[in-house]
Amino acid sequence: MNYKIAVIPGDGIGPEIVGASTKVLDKIGEKFNHTFNYTEVLAGGVAIDATGSPLPQETVDICKASDAVILGALGGPKWDNLPGDKRPEAGLLGIRKALGLYANLRPAILYEELKAACPLKPEIAGEGLDIMVVRELTGDVYFGEKGRDGDEAAWDIMKYTRPEVLRIARKAFEIAMKRNKKVTNVDKANVLEVSRFWRSCVLEVAKDFPEVELNHLYVDNAAMQLVINPKQFDVIVTGNLFGDILSDEASMITGSIGMLPSASLSDGKFGMYEPIHGSAPDIAGQDKANPIATIISVAMMLRFSLDLIKEADCIEAAVKKTLAQGYRTGDIYSEGMKLVGTVEMGQKIIENL
Amino acid sequence: MNYKIAVIPGDGIGPEIVGASTKVLDKIGEKFNHTFNYTEVLAGGVAIDATGSPLPQETVDICKASDAVILGALGGPKWDNLPGDKRPEAGLLGIRKALGLYANLRPAILYEELKAACPLKPEIAGEGLDIMVVRELTGDVYFGEKGRDGDEAAWDIMKYTRPEVLRIARKAFEIAMKRNKKVTNVDKANVLEVSRFWRSCVLEVAKDFPEVELNHLYVDNAAMQLVINPKQFDVIVTGNLFGDILSDEASMITGSIGMLPSASLSDGKFGMYEPIHGSAPDIAGQDKANPIATIISVAMMLRFSLDLIKEADCIEAAVKKTLAQGYRTGDIYSEGMKLVGTVEMGQKIIENL
Ligand SMILES: CC(C)[C@H](C(=O)O)[C@@H](O)C(=O)O
Ligand SMILES: CC(C)[C@H](C(=O)O)[C@@H](O)C(=O)O
Repeated sequence: MNYKIAVIPGDGIGPEIVGASTKVLDKIGEKFNHTFNYTEVLAGGVAIDATGSPLPQETVDICKASDAVILGALGGPKWDNLPGDKRPEAGLLGIRKALGLYANLRPAILYEELKAACPLKPEIAGEGLDIMVVRELTGDVYFGEKGRDGDEAAWDIMKYTRPEVLRIARKAFEIAMKRNKKVTNVDKANVLEVSRFWRSCVLEVAKDFPEVELNHLYVDNAAMQLVINPKQFDVIVTGNLFGDILSDEASMITGSIGMLPSASLSDGKFGMYEPIHGSAPDIAGQDKANPIATIISVAMMLRFSLDLIKEADCIEAAVKKTLAQGYRTGDIYSEGMKLVGTVEMGQKIIENL
Repeated sequence: MNYKIAVIPGDGIGPEIVGASTKVLDKIGEKFNHTFNYTEVLAGGVAIDATGSPLPQETVDICKASDAVILGALGGPKWDNLPGDKRPEAGLLGIRKALGLYANLRPAILYEELKAACPLKPEIAGEGLDIMVVRELTGDVYFGEKGRDGDEAAWDIMKYTRPEVLRIARKAFEIAMKRNKKVTNVDKANVLEVSRFWRSCVLEVAKDFPEVELNHLYVDNAAMQLVINPKQFDVIVTGNLFGDILSDEASMITGSIGMLPSASLSDGKFGMYEPIHGSAPDIAGQDKANPIATIISVAMMLRFSLDLIKEADCIEAAVKKTLAQGYRTGDIYSEGMKLVGTVEMGQKIIENL
């Protein structure tokens, strides 16, 4: 089969990790007889530098005409002092909205091989962690009206509509059905009207999934539970802002942030795939970045957008094998392991495919 | 001297922990020749049951006529299904607003004696943690306009005004001057207009404190840094919602939540003092609750509202001594220690005053 993939290398380490990942994908193509046609497009800081806009219309058009999108990372200190709507982040928010990517799946997994990097005591992390954070991605205070009252005040509206909550809740329950059938809804319903509304919509969807156990946590409590008892979680469903905070916290308690992928899905099969870590400008261009999060994001793409399950399994197995062989980039290095750079890590994974 | 203290025992374990704390305070009065006159008032669930309102006007009036307020804990499952403005939480938000308690100080301290309870690996927690979260308490999305568009949507406005940000920032810098002179401002300025405004106000105040080192973190990054590198923090200043989440996370990484006090201050000396843990309805009335967080809150009251520094030191020393003697309530119990109940823990601390 022939697949059209839009590729957004982005800023900082983006080009390096995306480069390693498309090489893995090419090898998968060879092995399984697929052709992946890449179209490279601009977004974020490099787009600002080249076109003045963090998200040129051409980028949106090409992404829409593709089967899926691979994104490296956007942003960096160079563009941090631009006004809000001209920053790299505006490109990221813009592309999520333009492509209708309302469901952000962020698995937080503690890899057996990387237990040493987990900041939690072994008795808390136990035999490993496997949490799926399902974050709403195109609503909430991220996309509400915003404004200033002169120099005296500023505001953003935190808002959700019924269809927005129903579809993300449904996505979370569907995912839970394929996992351990437990959904934890996180909101701040003891204070926020939007949270009380959100919760009532989640309860409505829950009726269609009687097999799934549903519970509710306030966001402050969820932030605590992730530290003290992360093993209670299977699927967490939450809004855009709380999901931003909790998915980052969840990834950090695994100690494996250089390893964690994400998928941003629209209705249907289309999706954008990116590592959850950032653009790490401090190590950009030095062949130091860990490409594994991006490579596993590509595996997610094969699984969710292209229905290439065997191929996805193959990549994930190769990553595990490479770790088992002791290869480590600097961020996950521990004594006795073999330190490699971005390119070599990619090659080892290709050899293990 | 004579002091007027309003006491709000509240719900769940509230009456027990407050009871143990006022006994400690009475002993301090005896020792140092002060009289503390308590007026007990209703708020939260017990107020709903007795008067129909979570915050009777009489409670506000008596608090206002006092030198300080001691609060136990509010809320419980019994009242969780009431409409938003009739719930115990509405009493808590109402009293914060009515008393102008805009500055919420939440120290997150890892007690040497309780190192075993810290969920983080020893190499991360190091020789202890001592973070002061300064949370804005009477603004933000907590108190913005809110509403519903029929059954189709709901919203809350996240808003800050200039005077609100200036005064909380000033408080944070003043506190940092008495500590390690480092302030970390937490916001989401890459997305929210209110955060960009907040940050500009913080920068304005910073000019008056050239000795204080100021840095900025986005809230998602702050949630990560607390887990992976908590020792970088001295004073964290942030808004109401982010402060709710991060202060709870910070308390949890210490593993000492039953030990952590809080102060909610207005301009001037007046303040309300309460443990940061909740009403724990599951163990209410069983003499199991840990009274230490409330007892240390009382010490904070002596220090901040009544200027009784020696007296505050005396309480804190007695708590440390009691822990060193091995007395533990169930929540902080570990093998080889002496398990005691709420009342006995209070008595041991009194003996050590
Ligand atoms: C860069 C920023 C706008 C973005 C977000 O907050 O969504 C990032 O933190 C993320 O989680 O993808
Ligand atoms: C009970 C709730 C309204 C409250 C808050 O969110 O402020 C609590 O979580 C706290 O932090 O004191």
